[in-house]
Amino acid sequence: MGRQGLDKRFLGYTGLALEKLKEAGAEVEDHIRVTKDGITYEGIVIPRSERADERHIVIKLRSGYNIGIETTPTTRIEKIGPKTKLAFNPPPPPPQKIGLPEVAIVSTGGTIASRVDYRTGAVRPAISANDLYSIIPELSDIAVIDAEILFSLFSEDLTPAHWTKIAENVSKRVTDGVAGVVITHGTDTMGYTAAALSFALQNLPVPIILVGAQRSEDRPSSDAATNLIGAVLCAAKAPFAEVAVAMHESISDESIILHRGTKVRKCHTSRRDAFKSINVDPIARIRDRDIAMLTDDYCERDPRRELILKPGFDEKVALLKFYPSMEPEIIRSLGDKGYRGIVLEGTGLGHVSRRWLQLIRETVERRIILAMTSQCIWGRVNMNVYENGRDLLAIGVLALGDMLPETALVKMMWALGETRDADEAKRLLQTNIAHEISERTVKM
Amino acid sequence: MGRQGLDKRFLGYTGLALEKLKEAGAEVEDHIRVTKDGITYEGIVIPRSERADERHIVIKLRSGYNIGIETTPTTRIEKIGPKTKLAFNPPPPPPQKIGLPEVAIVSTGGTIASRVDYRTGAVRPAISANDLYSIIPELSDIAVIDAEILFSLFSEDLTPAHWTKIAENVSKRVTDGVAGVVITHGTDTMGYTAAALSFALQNLPVPIILVGAQRSEDRPSSDAATNLIGAVLCAAKAPFAEVAVAMHESISDESIILHRGTKVRKCHTSRRDAFKSINVDPIARIRDRDIAMLTDDYCERDPRRELILKPGFDEKVALLKFYPSMEPEIIRSLGDKGYRGIVLEGTGLGHVSRRWLQLIRETVERRIILAMTSQCIWGRVNMNVYENGRDLLAIGVLALGDMLPETALVKMMWALGETRDADEAKRLLQTNIAHEISERTVKM
Repeated sequence: MGRQGLDKRFLGYTGLALEKLKEAGAEVEDHIRVTKDGITYEGIVIPRSERADERHIVIKLRSGYNIGIETTPTTRIEKIGPKTKLAFNPPPPPPQKIGLPEVAIVSTGGTIASRVDYRTGAVRPAISANDLYSIIPELSDIAVIDAEILFSLFSEDLTPAHWTKIAENVSKRVTDGVAGVVITHGTDTMGYTAAALSFALQNLPVPIILVGAQRSEDRPSSDAATNLIGAVLCAAKAPFAEVAVAMHESISDESIILHRGTKVRKCHTSRRDAFKSINVDPIARIRDRDIAMLTDDYCERDPRRELILKPGFDEKVALLKFYPSMEPEIIRSLGDKGYRGIVLEGTGLGHVSRRWLQLIRETVERRIILAMTSQCIWGRVNMNVYENGRDLLAIGVLALGDMLPETALVKMMWALGETRDADEAKRLLQTNIAHEISERTVKM
Repeated sequence: MGRQGLDKRFLGYTGLALEKLKEAGAEVEDHIRVTKDGITYEGIVIPRSERADERHIVIKLRSGYNIGIETTPTTRIEKIGPKTKLAFNPPPPPPQKIGLPEVAIVSTGGTIASRVDYRTGAVRPAISANDLYSIIPELSDIAVIDAEILFSLFSEDLTPAHWTKIAENVSKRVTDGVAGVVITHGTDTMGYTAAALSFALQNLPVPIILVGAQRSEDRPSSDAATNLIGAVLCAAKAPFAEVAVAMHESISDESIILHRGTKVRKCHTSRRDAFKSINVDPIARIRDRDIAMLTDDYCERDPRRELILKPGFDEKVALLKFYPSMEPEIIRSLGDKGYRGIVLEGTGLGHVSRRWLQLIRETVERRIILAMTSQCIWGRVNMNVYENGRDLLAIGVLALGDMLPETALVKMMWALGETRDADEAKRLLQTNIAHEISERTVKM
């Protein structure tokens, strides 16, 4: 990026995008109209971050939504209104109440923990306890918050090494005696992290609640505040001591639903109720600050219980989604690269093409663990019904019941982090540790 | 398999399974009780096919369901009742009516087209027109059926080469002037085949209906007959001329729902209503033999229209589901193997880890097409919202809107089958050809 990117009037803009703005006589914070391919967009020019490309102009629409428009030589830009000040000035926080339960908030990044800082265009975490109280004053009625920034990452950039760090950090907070821990997290891979913590944090005395937001806090339709209030309420007061995900139950703000960490999946790209419990009912619902349990089968909160930390994950595990004409050689090459386990996302009740059988047999003979889940998402594998399934079982492929493919991946990484012995890892995989296998499928 | 497998009394049984049956004095068609790991199963011993393994005993439960039980040295088997005759004796077919529309049924295999032949234990297709009329006499009120067995395959064994053969066969039937075509298909990959035919069969004059069954016809809960009746009714009389999938709408037998071929997905391993339209309403519903259209936006039946056949698919296309810690080197190795396109199933709005960007850039520079879909399944990718997405767009990754990952894979195979030119293939990928991209997301 050239020096021009440092000009405050065009902060972060370079290349064609900068040229187009200058042609129109428009600067950052000006109101502009962009016409491209016959479509018109109107909004306020937003500064860009330092890693920005040379083609996109980002504007804030009237809806509060930010949109990036890729300029081409034919894109037309007109300045249509005066500057709008975009500075971020949170109000002063309310006074902290005393005698409330203590809740730790561990921030890992994502939409919920961020506000766009319009002075720099960068997304910055706004997660000091004071910042939180000032943005969401209701929190000060519920708990004494101790907030900490562990990472500031988009969740698609998190790896098992980050799961380990989160687990260790949460363990420390729990041992310190908090009433519960809230982890703010990008929604993209929150389901994977929730599963990871479900296996890494065993024998929990208090609840561990992951929470995210589908729309950032500066948008009118944001779910950030209601989700965070629900998560903190659960951490402070819920009767269960498990890892769960707190998100909108529907598109309304009326209820927050708590999903078990091993049974939850992001099932929509943008809706506020994107997270769904798969094959089971959610564990609890919050409505009007009231927590209602939705199952009798849960681990009760008990501060005397001693957390057992098992935070290791082996990254040499792959998830493969099968599709017609997929070549089985991928399995051999994973074996050659030292992979110790493979989760298959097969079709239907747990199938792959017969053309895969020979290589699967060779892979199992190399002591690499192969386990079957279903790309249907809902339901459970049953490899006794059809011949292809029975053959896979006979070869030694494990059937993982109704375990989600993503949870199975995480659990295999965890099991192989726990033990170097393949048989012991297989035993762990088939043992129900954190409700990841349910006996019956309750609903679709 | 040894000679012992040919003994009629133990047809198909070998190894430990045979030993256990002999110990108990039980033969094929005997009523037995199996006790394994403290669980008891009771049913009738069913003959096994020639490719059977040496450990499973298959019994028919009272429910009509067949279950395979893996024997171990400690499995206990008792004979508890006399033989039950399992022979398959269909009743004689009703007389064929005249003056009805002609419907071609093309059988590719799967549960719907099969009955277990209890004389051999093998699954055999039962799909001559006479067989069909005798099993499902209602068909003779709806249409004159011309049935043909194209393949008898489990659908997980189908490849793009089979899609081509199906498309060519259907094209011939349509050109011959039938009122519609029904394709019976295993449910595991029926969604992939439905998408493939949606692109391969353009400008259709009549409807092409894929149909499957989640429970085989010899089970009391079978959906085979109601689904097939619905499919034949649609082929004979529906006002639309598109590729669609006919399956149960709910777990009741009351209605059959028609899903568009490009927007349908198997979302449950075993339920009869496993198939769901994603991001759009289904195209039609059948209730009491009445077809109700659920959208105004469809291609009308018009026998004068001339089908355009585009049946080629390039198999050098991969679908990659992203997960935390997934290594991007897979992309390079696909390029080295001559792959021409890769569909990414990213997280959320269409993301992968920043660690992938460099290799994605190199891959795009090799003129390999990279396109983004979302593993959320519902919703649509929008790569303008976050920086990782904008960077991927700037590199040249295509955003495929709300196209299903499976449909995107099939469409890329088809587009690269149509043209050797990457730019033209990209243009095809982003052009709406068979309703695979919808403008708005109507529901979850």
